[in-house]
Amino acid sequence: MNEDEIKQAFGLTIKQFRTSLNLSQEKLAEITGLHRTYISEVEKGDRNLSLINIIKLCNALQIRPSTLFKL
Amino acid sequence: MNEDEIKQAFGLTIKQFRTSLNLSQEKLAEITGLHRTYISEVEKGDRNLSLINIIKLCNALQIRPSTLFKL
Repeated sequence: MNEDEIKQAFGLTIKQFRTSLNLSQEKLAEITGLHRTYISEVEKGDRNLSLINIIKLCNALQIRPSTLFKL
Repeated sequence: MNEDEIKQAFGLTIKQFRTSLNLSQEKLAEITGLHRTYISEVEKGDRNLSLINIIKLCNALQIRPSTLFKL
């Protein structure tokens, strides 16, 4: 799995959890304090996000960080 | 758990896996292509490392990313 594939797989997982909670990108942005555009880029695999933002997303999606890593 | 605590917990976990493999920071740096100083800072909890570097470290330590997150 190359770096783009890792980011894309991660973004897709975030999106799946977000939609399973019926959260909009706007709402997830509001909960995490991250920008909606940033959320959108993460989900598209365009962002190499940091540990702290990974944790913020996990907290907002009410999942353990380990759950996010299906890689 | 605040942001510093998250980084410290993560760094400590990296260090535990590294030492359990009898790898020096220098050797882990060599395997991952990251700088030894960076590895040292990660282990001390001074770095908010990125998804790609998390994966590089997991590959080098031969562990699944989910294993790293005991948080």
